[in-house]
Amino acid sequence: MRDFSDDHRWLSLNTATVRKQGDLAQIVDACARHGIRAIDPWRDQVAAIGLDRAVRIVRDAGLDLSGYCRGGMFVADDAHRQAARDDNRRAVDEAKALGASCLVLVVGGLPQYSRPGSVASRDIVAARARVDDGIAELLDYARQVDMPLAIEPLHPAYAADRACVNTTRQALDICDRLDPAKSGAIGVALDVYHIWWDPDVLAQIERAGKARLLAFHVCDWLVPTKDILNDRGMMGDGVIDIRSLRAAVEAQGFAGYSEIEIFSNHWWEQPMDDLIHACIARHRTVV
Amino acid sequence: MRDFSDDHRWLSLNTATVRKQGDLAQIVDACARHGIRAIDPWRDQVAAIGLDRAVRIVRDAGLDLSGYCRGGMFVADDAHRQAARDDNRRAVDEAKALGASCLVLVVGGLPQYSRPGSVASRDIVAARARVDDGIAELLDYARQVDMPLAIEPLHPAYAADRACVNTTRQALDICDRLDPAKSGAIGVALDVYHIWWDPDVLAQIERAGKARLLAFHVCDWLVPTKDILNDRGMMGDGVIDIRSLRAAVEAQGFAGYSEIEIFSNHWWEQPMDDLIHACIARHRTVV
Repeated sequence: MRDFSDDHRWLSLNTATVRKQGDLAQIVDACARHGIRAIDPWRDQVAAIGLDRAVRIVRDAGLDLSGYCRGGMFVADDAHRQAARDDNRRAVDEAKALGASCLVLVVGGLPQYSRPGSVASRDIVAARARVDDGIAELLDYARQVDMPLAIEPLHPAYAADRACVNTTRQALDICDRLDPAKSGAIGVALDVYHIWWDPDVLAQIERAGKARLLAFHVCDWLVPTKDILNDRGMMGDGVIDIRSLRAAVEAQGFAGYSEIEIFSNHWWEQPMDDLIHACIARHRTVV
Repeated sequence: MRDFSDDHRWLSLNTATVRKQGDLAQIVDACARHGIRAIDPWRDQVAAIGLDRAVRIVRDAGLDLSGYCRGGMFVADDAHRQAARDDNRRAVDEAKALGASCLVLVVGGLPQYSRPGSVASRDIVAARARVDDGIAELLDYARQVDMPLAIEPLHPAYAADRACVNTTRQALDICDRLDPAKSGAIGVALDVYHIWWDPDVLAQIERAGKARLLAFHVCDWLVPTKDILNDRGMMGDGVIDIRSLRAAVEAQGFAGYSEIEIFSNHWWEQPMDDLIHACIARHRTVV
């Protein structure tokens, strides 16, 4: 297991962590100030400054992209399916232009939440089938431009509105169906927030192996959690045994960035540099 | 599958649903007014009026008890283990005195939340081992008085503070280890709120079979969920395909009560009779 205590060369900043503190250009500047080598930007943040400018400032700053957030939301009714397909292909293209290591997929939940305007449904089994089809279709496109797809299983608390892939096992089952050869074209993005509770997680990380482990995200689960979406904790402030999970992915050969992704009403109110200082300190001591 | 549309003979009221509207005696009176044949009372509600009186009013009203809430919280440090053991044995005794069909077990999460005052830990693997031991020990006691134990897997959102048994598979694994003969001494209490998201749930209900299906609870998952504990929905107001889950347990031969358990800041503010009216209506149309 790598020693993170001396530096933060393996820290990547998911830019949603500081989305309220500045635009993508300001975030990239902050990364330079703090010696952060990698980011994972969100599509809306890229769109806000324009893709061309985003490509330029990322390249000029010499930043790696540990991922691009995000494709997915595959669950749609017939009337919204083409738009979902087109949208996801654009996400692949943007990821490619930015030089991201993978496109993170949040697969969508029920159609009315995944693609608003779709006919409402309570059929999560059907939603999961639609996800399988959507990923299969996008994978054909992504293979052509050599952009790996990283399925992110989301905590079951988000099964209805964000992702009906809720366990690492489920995500790997999809990978194995679509890419039995483990070519590197598809894998998983594992965020400790989503997987820490899973009694099967260590076995599934072993099953994943290096070829499927495309990204590793950290934050913490707070008790109590005051907001189901935007009350993630800074690493060390919650109950997740982060180091055991990092040890498990590194035991499989994962050697990528440890990406910090904190959606937090609390932290969004702090000055950008204070928040980044905290991230770096906890990366060294807790992650 | 039973037809619930004509009457509510299979409706049981978990008394936490109306805990803010009255004490257990008032709740029992309300059940009589509304033709409700079964309840599942909580220990604190029984204690508030005294066990002897609770036994008497339940018997006088001719009420069935579809369960007794609750035993568990097995995860404790050494200093708190004896107290946890004694507390759980008392829960068995109370369930027996009240004539409950089973004692529902919410197994506990990390020790600092499960048994406050215990030394804090982030080791959920150790917590799960402690749960195994605690249930094994309690089962020996419960067998002597013929009180079935019903392990309730809780939604992963409660893994830290309430229950580290988070899937039906996990609960059944414990049952199979402790009671391979399926004697009826131990099984599961399945609440749609906790299990609806699980991609494995239908297979696990089939695995459970009639012998392990000791209780079935209903409410709904709201989107958005505004409070992680106390924003459960009335059946039909959320996203859970309740009828498919009831069909699955009944296909295994489950023929017990459909118990309504709604923790809701919203519903706790409604008059008791209005809330019970809504429960009965939705039981007939949605459950």
